[in-house]
Amino acid sequence: MHIARIEKDGRRGYGVLEQDVVHQLDGDPFAAIVRTGRSDPLSDVRLLAPVAAPRVFGVGLNYVAHIAESGAKTPTTPLLFMKPSTSVIGPGEPIVYPTEAKLVHFEAELAVVIGRGGRRIAEADALDHVLGYTLANDVSERVIQKTEMDQGALLVGKGFDGFCPLGPVIATGLDPAAIRLGARVNGEQRQESSTADLLFSVRDLVAYLSSAITLLPGDVIITGTPSGVGPIVPGDVVEIFADGIGVLTNPVVAEPTN
Amino acid sequence: MHIARIEKDGRRGYGVLEQDVVHQLDGDPFAAIVRTGRSDPLSDVRLLAPVAAPRVFGVGLNYVAHIAESGAKTPTTPLLFMKPSTSVIGPGEPIVYPTEAKLVHFEAELAVVIGRGGRRIAEADALDHVLGYTLANDVSERVIQKTEMDQGALLVGKGFDGFCPLGPVIATGLDPAAIRLGARVNGEQRQESSTADLLFSVRDLVAYLSSAITLLPGDVIITGTPSGVGPIVPGDVVEIFADGIGVLTNPVVAEPTN
Repeated sequence: MHIARIEKDGRRGYGVLEQDVVHQLDGDPFAAIVRTGRSDPLSDVRLLAPVAAPRVFGVGLNYVAHIAESGAKTPTTPLLFMKPSTSVIGPGEPIVYPTEAKLVHFEAELAVVIGRGGRRIAEADALDHVLGYTLANDVSERVIQKTEMDQGALLVGKGFDGFCPLGPVIATGLDPAAIRLGARVNGEQRQESSTADLLFSVRDLVAYLSSAITLLPGDVIITGTPSGVGPIVPGDVVEIFADGIGVLTNPVVAEPTN
Repeated sequence: MHIARIEKDGRRGYGVLEQDVVHQLDGDPFAAIVRTGRSDPLSDVRLLAPVAAPRVFGVGLNYVAHIAESGAKTPTTPLLFMKPSTSVIGPGEPIVYPTEAKLVHFEAELAVVIGRGGRRIAEADALDHVLGYTLANDVSERVIQKTEMDQGALLVGKGFDGFCPLGPVIATGLDPAAIRLGARVNGEQRQESSTADLLFSVRDLVAYLSSAITLLPGDVIITGTPSGVGPIVPGDVVEIFADGIGVLTNPVVAEPTN
C-alpha cells in the first residue's frame, strides 16, 4: 500500500494511492487506515512530505562503502543526530542552497516512519512498530558539518531549512533488509546500493533509539546513505529512488538575496 | 512577569503567576498574553514544563570555566545538538536513571523560550524574538556522550526520556547578559556562575541558529552549563536556580526493572 499526504484546495490530509487515484483517509494513518469513501484523481492533488513536522532522527556512516569513501572509522554504536522539523520539505519543493554554503552534498536514504510508538522495543518486535518506508535526501553542507563533527556534535550542517526532502509516499509491506535505493543528479545515476549493506539494520536502529528515547507515531528515522555522495549546486535536479517506494525529486535553487 | 504552564483537574493551560495566584491565560503566551479573568490558588494547580513537547536546541561547552574542566578545545562556532521532546519533564517530576547508565551528570542551564519565530534574525533584533527565560537541567550520561562525541555526533547521551527538566516558570523582562544561576544537589551548592561568562551570548545563539533554521514560537534553546558539574544517583534531589526565575527541583530515581 502507498500512503500519501496530500493538499487539495488548501486542505491537507492523508490518502491511499492506487494507480492514479488517491482514496482519502479519515485522520492520520498511524493507528489505523480508515477510508472516508471519497477520492481524488492524483492529478488534482499535491503530494506533501508524508509526515507533518516530524521528529527526524538521522544516522551517519551506516553503509560500509560510504564509511570507506568518507575516511571515517566504523562506528561502534549508531552515530545519531536530529534534523529539525523545519528542514523537512516535500516532493518537488526546492532545496534552497544557503548563501553561506560552500559544499552541499545529496544523500539518498531509506526513511522509516514509526506507526506505533514505544520505549525499549526489542529487535524482534521492531518492525511491528513501523508503519512503512519513504525516501529521504539527507542534504548536508560538508564544511560546516566537518567543523561541527570535529567539535563532537552535529546540527547546522544537516539542519538548514529545506535540507530534508521526504517522500513521495509511505510504502507498507516492504522487507527493509533488501531495498534497492539510490540517487540521480540531472538524470545521471550517482548512488545505487541496497539496504542489505546497512551496518545497523532497521531493527537495530529502532531497538537502539528506543532504548533511550520513547518513539512516537510519525517519528522518522533516516537510516544513512550508501557510497557515491557528491555535490549539488543551484540548477541541479536530484532524484532519490527505491524499488517499491518511488522517486523523490527536488530541484536545487539559490537562496534569494535581499 | 512569571508565565506558568499548569494542570488542574486534568486540564492544561497557561497562566501568569502573581504571589500565590495563577491568572489563567487564553491559549498560549507566544503571540500575546490574554487573561481570561479566571484564577486559581497556586496550591490547587500542578506546574508543568513551561512548553509542551518543544524542540530543544542544546549548546555544549559555552562557559569558559566549564570548557577548562572538561579538557575540551574552545569551540569556534556554537557546539549545537538537539534533545528530543520526550526528554522534557516538568518541575518535581523524577529524573529516571537508566538501567544502562554508568555516570550521569546534572548541568544547570539558562533556557531561552522563543516567542516570535524567524529566520536570519540579526543579533540586534534577537531579544525581540525571546518570550522569556526558564531553567533547564541538561542531564547527561557521560560514558555514552563521550562515545558519541568521539564519533562526531550527540543524541542518546543527552536524549534519554526525562533528561531535560524545564521550569519552573518563564520569566520575562530579564537581561540575559547577567543572570546568576547554579545548581544544588541534596541542598549542597555545586554550581554558581553568571551568564556574563557565556562564550556565545543569547543574542549570538539566536542569530547563529536562525541563520540556518527557522525558529518557531515555543522553541527552547538551552545555553550551556558553567563549571562544577558532577554525578547524580538515585535518591538525590537536584535544584537548578537563577535570580529572577526561581528553582527547578527534580528527584533522581532508579529505572524500574521488570
